[in-house]
Amino acid sequence: MKKLINSPETVVKEALEGMAAMHPELIRVDLENQIIVRADAPVRGKVGVVSGGGSGHEPMHGGFVGRGMLDAACPGAIFTSPVPDQILAAMRAVNGGAGVFQIIKNYTGDVLNFEMAAELAQAEGIEVASVITNDDVAVEDSLYTAGRRGVGVTVLLEKIVGGLAESGASLEQVAALAKRVNEQGRSMGMALTSCTVPAKGTPTFDLGEDEMEIGIGIHGEPGRRRVKLAPAADIVEMLANPIIEDLGLKAGERVLAFVNGMGGTPLIELYIVARELARILKGRNITIARSLVGSYITSLEMAGCSITLLRVDDEMLRYWDAPVLTPALRWGI
Amino acid sequence: MKKLINSPETVVKEALEGMAAMHPELIRVDLENQIIVRADAPVRGKVGVVSGGGSGHEPMHGGFVGRGMLDAACPGAIFTSPVPDQILAAMRAVNGGAGVFQIIKNYTGDVLNFEMAAELAQAEGIEVASVITNDDVAVEDSLYTAGRRGVGVTVLLEKIVGGLAESGASLEQVAALAKRVNEQGRSMGMALTSCTVPAKGTPTFDLGEDEMEIGIGIHGEPGRRRVKLAPAADIVEMLANPIIEDLGLKAGERVLAFVNGMGGTPLIELYIVARELARILKGRNITIARSLVGSYITSLEMAGCSITLLRVDDEMLRYWDAPVLTPALRWGI
Repeated sequence: MKKLINSPETVVKEALEGMAAMHPELIRVDLENQIIVRADAPVRGKVGVVSGGGSGHEPMHGGFVGRGMLDAACPGAIFTSPVPDQILAAMRAVNGGAGVFQIIKNYTGDVLNFEMAAELAQAEGIEVASVITNDDVAVEDSLYTAGRRGVGVTVLLEKIVGGLAESGASLEQVAALAKRVNEQGRSMGMALTSCTVPAKGTPTFDLGEDEMEIGIGIHGEPGRRRVKLAPAADIVEMLANPIIEDLGLKAGERVLAFVNGMGGTPLIELYIVARELARILKGRNITIARSLVGSYITSLEMAGCSITLLRVDDEMLRYWDAPVLTPALRWGI
Repeated sequence: MKKLINSPETVVKEALEGMAAMHPELIRVDLENQIIVRADAPVRGKVGVVSGGGSGHEPMHGGFVGRGMLDAACPGAIFTSPVPDQILAAMRAVNGGAGVFQIIKNYTGDVLNFEMAAELAQAEGIEVASVITNDDVAVEDSLYTAGRRGVGVTVLLEKIVGGLAESGASLEQVAALAKRVNEQGRSMGMALTSCTVPAKGTPTFDLGEDEMEIGIGIHGEPGRRRVKLAPAADIVEMLANPIIEDLGLKAGERVLAFVNGMGGTPLIELYIVARELARILKGRNITIARSLVGSYITSLEMAGCSITLLRVDDEMLRYWDAPVLTPALRWGI
């Protein structure tokens, strides 16, 4: 295992300390509760937006904490759900009196623990609503999930819903937009190589030198099928066509196109993937209204990519374009 | 070789097509000349800022084209200098009548070809000035360079000088600030794994499972020494201390701290590196005035990192903070 770490046990804590040291103007880190909170939280009268999940997917979620996106993130151990007390601490820290909105990726542990934290928060008088993202078209159930997994749409949803919450919207309005974004987005990923969880020290799975995994999960859990390595053009067909069909995208529609790197894939390759995606969309007369290209929801150092398409409406575009100031995404401020 | 590409011959061209498809509001790509130009170029009365170099270091430089940073970038083949005609085409495309400023990394081929392009441009009546970045403290000469290599400072310089040029400064003012930024910045990098140039198909160098290369170049060229893998804390000492000493940083001074990923290293590890760097700087009573953490000057899929420290003054901070709108760096717009 070749990693820039000190020891497998301290990876998450030390990365949080690094974030705190580098972005003091944007975020505060509460190491005892293992949460990241925007520097000016709680914002009075604003819905507090909270997300979280296992670590190892950076910048998601901690890198998205700040003005116009998340109010707090609670990172668990690597690929492990945050615990209810941790989530509750995050909810308390961002409760400005207008309620707290939870963004939960559909993994069994995450869903259970966020629900438990919601009950505890409600018992304290905090109003709570939530969305469970489940955009991965690759598999119906998986090692970590009943139903579809929550992946790339989560990033887009956190930006769009965070923008709406920043504008002073109510908890009901935030929940309604979140539901719509999740319904209108689909994703699928693939891997060229495995990731290695630090505490384990060996690759999560083995792939031959001429093999790739189509439909991979963000913890390296199995996808749809293992096939021979193929040109980028063919790989993107394998990812994009199931998304387009599942979403029922038709000629003349508009999407936000998100080409995501899994952590170990360089940007030059992601732009080749983007080229192939643009070609497929153009062939179907679907317009790319906005785009995002980079490694935003990762699986440690896994090489590979995922594609997310979100069918956008004017409200989504307005809050996608709205100012954001976080460690990993920023514009307009 | 496991890469998301179609063929080794088309990597650069297809990545440029992907950039054009994803960022039409920011940039134009001229495929015939293989240059990337900001969408509204040439901007009348503004100094045109041009950079370039071998591909394989993305997002540098093409990802930095846009308002407040570069007016154009000319990417060569992978790890290969752009040719004079290509650089000249970029200079012509951004000449708004106030002269063109070249930002050149110190590699022999780059320096020669940019100089030749400058002569051709001057013969056409375009005023030209330039800076050659040479911030790498690792080695004095290398496989590609006489003198020190130009690395991480280039990214910071492109942002700061781009901000000044956007404000309407003269070519002389731009050149003066560029000179100062280059003088006040130093870098050093390391690798855990090699990169693989697509046309070659095999790793550029071999590193044992328990080895790393300290002082690596951004083309995988040899560094200071090959040593046993060590904890992040020790690695950062090996990188940061030579930088601090070479720069003569003293207690009470301020820096812009840049922790850069080499392409295959995930963000969670870069934040552990950032933690160690912050600890070392704090121990010397050096203040982190600004920071940048991410993969901005890369070596294809190499795993590793580099550290850059820039001793900042108020003018540098003003133009670092100034609005920027490019595919890879954006804020304030």
